[in-house]
Amino acid sequence: MGRVKLYDTTLRDGTQAEDISLLLEDKIRIAHKLDELGIQYIEGGWPGSNPKDVAFFKEISREKLRQAKVAAFGSTRRARVAVEKDNNIKTLLAAEPDVITIFGKTWDFHVREALRISLEENLELIFDSLDFLKRHSGEVFYDAEHFFDGYKANPEYAVKTLQAAQQAGVDCIILCDTNGGTLPFEVARIIGDVQTRISTPLGIHSHNDSECAVANALQAVEMGVVQVQGTINGFGERCGNANLCSIIPSLQLKMKRECVSDDQLRNLQDVSRYVYELANIPPDKRQAFVGSSAFAHKGGVHVSAIERNPETYEHMRPELVGNRTRVLISDLSGRSNVMAKAKEFNLDLDSRDPVTLEILDNIKEMENRGYQFEGADASFELLMKKALGSHRKFFQIIGFRVLDEKRGEDQRPTSEATIKVKVGGKVEHTAAEGSGPVNALDNAIRKALEKFYPKLKEVKLLDYKVRVLPAGQGTASSTRVLIESGDRHNRWGTVGVSDNIIDASYIALIDSLDYKLHKLEE
Amino acid sequence: MGRVKLYDTTLRDGTQAEDISLLLEDKIRIAHKLDELGIQYIEGGWPGSNPKDVAFFKEISREKLRQAKVAAFGSTRRARVAVEKDNNIKTLLAAEPDVITIFGKTWDFHVREALRISLEENLELIFDSLDFLKRHSGEVFYDAEHFFDGYKANPEYAVKTLQAAQQAGVDCIILCDTNGGTLPFEVARIIGDVQTRISTPLGIHSHNDSECAVANALQAVEMGVVQVQGTINGFGERCGNANLCSIIPSLQLKMKRECVSDDQLRNLQDVSRYVYELANIPPDKRQAFVGSSAFAHKGGVHVSAIERNPETYEHMRPELVGNRTRVLISDLSGRSNVMAKAKEFNLDLDSRDPVTLEILDNIKEMENRGYQFEGADASFELLMKKALGSHRKFFQIIGFRVLDEKRGEDQRPTSEATIKVKVGGKVEHTAAEGSGPVNALDNAIRKALEKFYPKLKEVKLLDYKVRVLPAGQGTASSTRVLIESGDRHNRWGTVGVSDNIIDASYIALIDSLDYKLHKLEE
Repeated sequence: MGRVKLYDTTLRDGTQAEDISLLLEDKIRIAHKLDELGIQYIEGGWPGSNPKDVAFFKEISREKLRQAKVAAFGSTRRARVAVEKDNNIKTLLAAEPDVITIFGKTWDFHVREALRISLEENLELIFDSLDFLKRHSGEVFYDAEHFFDGYKANPEYAVKTLQAAQQAGVDCIILCDTNGGTLPFEVARIIGDVQTRISTPLGIHSHNDSECAVANALQAVEMGVVQVQGTINGFGERCGNANLCSIIPSLQLKMKRECVSDDQLRNLQDVSRYVYELANIPPDKRQAFVGSSAFAHKGGVHVSAIERNPETYEHMRPELVGNRTRVLISDLSGRSNVMAKAKEFNLDLDSRDPVTLEILDNIKEMENRGYQFEGADASFELLMKKALGSHRKFFQIIGFRVLDEKRGEDQRPTSEATIKVKVGGKVEHTAAEGSGPVNALDNAIRKALEKFYPKLKEVKLLDYKVRVLPAGQGTASSTRVLIESGDRHNRWGTVGVSDNIIDASYIALIDSLDYKLHKLEE
Repeated sequence: MGRVKLYDTTLRDGTQAEDISLLLEDKIRIAHKLDELGIQYIEGGWPGSNPKDVAFFKEISREKLRQAKVAAFGSTRRARVAVEKDNNIKTLLAAEPDVITIFGKTWDFHVREALRISLEENLELIFDSLDFLKRHSGEVFYDAEHFFDGYKANPEYAVKTLQAAQQAGVDCIILCDTNGGTLPFEVARIIGDVQTRISTPLGIHSHNDSECAVANALQAVEMGVVQVQGTINGFGERCGNANLCSIIPSLQLKMKRECVSDDQLRNLQDVSRYVYELANIPPDKRQAFVGSSAFAHKGGVHVSAIERNPETYEHMRPELVGNRTRVLISDLSGRSNVMAKAKEFNLDLDSRDPVTLEILDNIKEMENRGYQFEGADASFELLMKKALGSHRKFFQIIGFRVLDEKRGEDQRPTSEATIKVKVGGKVEHTAAEGSGPVNALDNAIRKALEKFYPKLKEVKLLDYKVRVLPAGQGTASSTRVLIESGDRHNRWGTVGVSDNIIDASYIALIDSLDYKLHKLEE
């Protein structure tokens, strides 16, 4: 079996996604990350379509990549224009990439509807463009746009377009499922037929519109395809492209087709997070292999089994892609979840210790009131510390007041909070404003406590979630507040539940600061 | 080809997902939605594992579902316990569901590691449990846990466990890829072999740990499997279960295997959104078929092509699943939505009327600030009335104050609101308490307005939802409040957005009462 090569198009197809727009500097930084991950080909952009992409190729030629080749993307020549005079083709050559990839039309419907030329002319466009590029540059790939739809509509013509590319001596022909509507068994059937008629090495470019992009890519490799195109995190137009973060580990670990080194594979989660960060998109927790929930266990049956042997409920070792096993606490969890958590927090707990049962009872009782500790590890750790008697009381809140006032029909309300805290015998009484009552209270609590514990300044509120619990009682119903806080090194979650949203927020805010103080002491 | 039946486990496996926890009321509401969508089997929970699930079966038996059958989930009997004395089996029968589904072990490794019994004993567990259930209840399904991993490890034994189930006369044997590590071509090969040895109808239950859950399910149906298990939006443990929102349209539209009606299929996006909303999880834009980006076009080439013919870059018509085409640069598609709404509200609106454009601009500006009118028809109708000049001002809020006070460390905070309103020249200044600031404000507003409009007493707050909008700014970020109100005859939704939760709640509360007053007048 030939080695499968990875072709990343995060920087081109990936930026077609809604909400994703990368700066030139971002693109350069991502290119380096992809190079380190061991990606063989990095498609940097379409220099014929916008100036940012022209600048990218200028810039990247000055950077030293370890091993990756940089590819420029473009289209076949225009109709009725000689190939050597075609602007798009000239711009591609001028960008001086290591590889040139151009796309052409496979689907007769598109030749008529979009290009508005004869089927014969389209074959000439493909042959001319590739033949010219092959004679004036190095490696050249051909993206057969809409290949699968084209094949389904007119298999003879679709294969003819591939034959035109093959005749031009192209290095790889990539079968594209541009609209993403093809299913894996169709991919198998169609590639099987193509292989009897085309000898040029084949590649696959799939989209996720049927949630089958990864499966289609893997199916194609199983059939003998040697190049896989995709993007990090599956970013791309509409539902996205084939997700390389899922394809790489399956190729490497399940199909035994090595494409990167084991060390590079261990960076997969890191690369995924890095690209999310630069694209300013929150990571998808549930993402296969690299998501934070990918190896998170909640059901008691599963937890007790993975404690004995992780293979029981994990399809692979998470460490291989830089991820880790997590145990979640919920009303579905049993004693083994509590034990696993205690271990994670370095707390000394015996499964027959009455404290374990007390904690479990406590959790169940709190969850009945609406608590949920899945996103609130810090509150859970404090709870365990309290049960074990190892919780230290750093401060005492004597009382607070929050006042929201609206002074006229067109005036927005203002919020002000006053607070009284006691630390080591000293009382601090202070006040602060905020946008809304919770923000005002948060500002006042911090202002008072930072006087005694200046390190609390490091704590930032990263996320604040509110869930109103049993529907049907309107505003009198119970409220759960989940807060995520962080400092330079860590992130932690806390939770509060009350029929009063101010009270619920207060409980979660206090836990967050209390947790930070405990960590500072450790 | 036999009709494929859909088996939804959102209410059981779906709740194993991190961050997802459904209240009993939510589960009942979702069951109705699934029933309306045409799902044939709804797995409601595991009555043997927690009291919430026992309550679900009690509750659902009193509700009238149109066509769906309700299934209860459980495990085979314990080792060394007679089946008729096994608590889990007894609880299943006591729940009196339409269908009972139990899981058993297929993988020899699990039999030894998790059950710690002999391979022979495990076969007895499976046979006994299913045989007993078949004799004491109606339809019985068998989930062969870890079937694919078990088959890969020991194909002979794995098939023996299925034969034990078949011998007990079970109605369907579901092959489970519990750890989600199996790839589509493995599914094809393994099911092909099973079909030569098992004649009982087969089903598929797949997980998304390799991002192949949907592909695996479709591959299995292609092989002849007649039951597909999955969840709405793919919710489920770790990376989730097979996503029914992707499976249903592919089965129906691509594979021509009808499983719901065309009308039901058009509700798919609505059902997806509904489940996200109740689970309090933001919808995934990029989700295949139902995501808001699924038919969104950004690239210039694509946009001009789809303007001529959508088939060029769309694998199917979005309307078939209740979605729509969006053009990201020039979103002109909104006008028809406004027209449709105006018609719904019996408002006289011309598409060339400048008011239509004004409403459209207004909506766009408000949506930019975080408004969302999907669950807030009443706010939308008031907005249109204001633009048309047919809105009547029933009252004026001059101002309000809300005070939350906590008087000691162990004291719960109290909330009090004062309000001043003006109706027809008369001013009313009053005060009320409540559990939390929003409830206190709501009580005060009603108390003041009911003096002038006693019919407002009929209005009940049915639901109150809070969503904090762009994460990352903590408690200072923007807040959206959705309120559902009702009287004896109707229900209506209103919305408010502000960086201050009190203000956002106030806006939605006022709209709700204003709407009622307009309806009383009509």
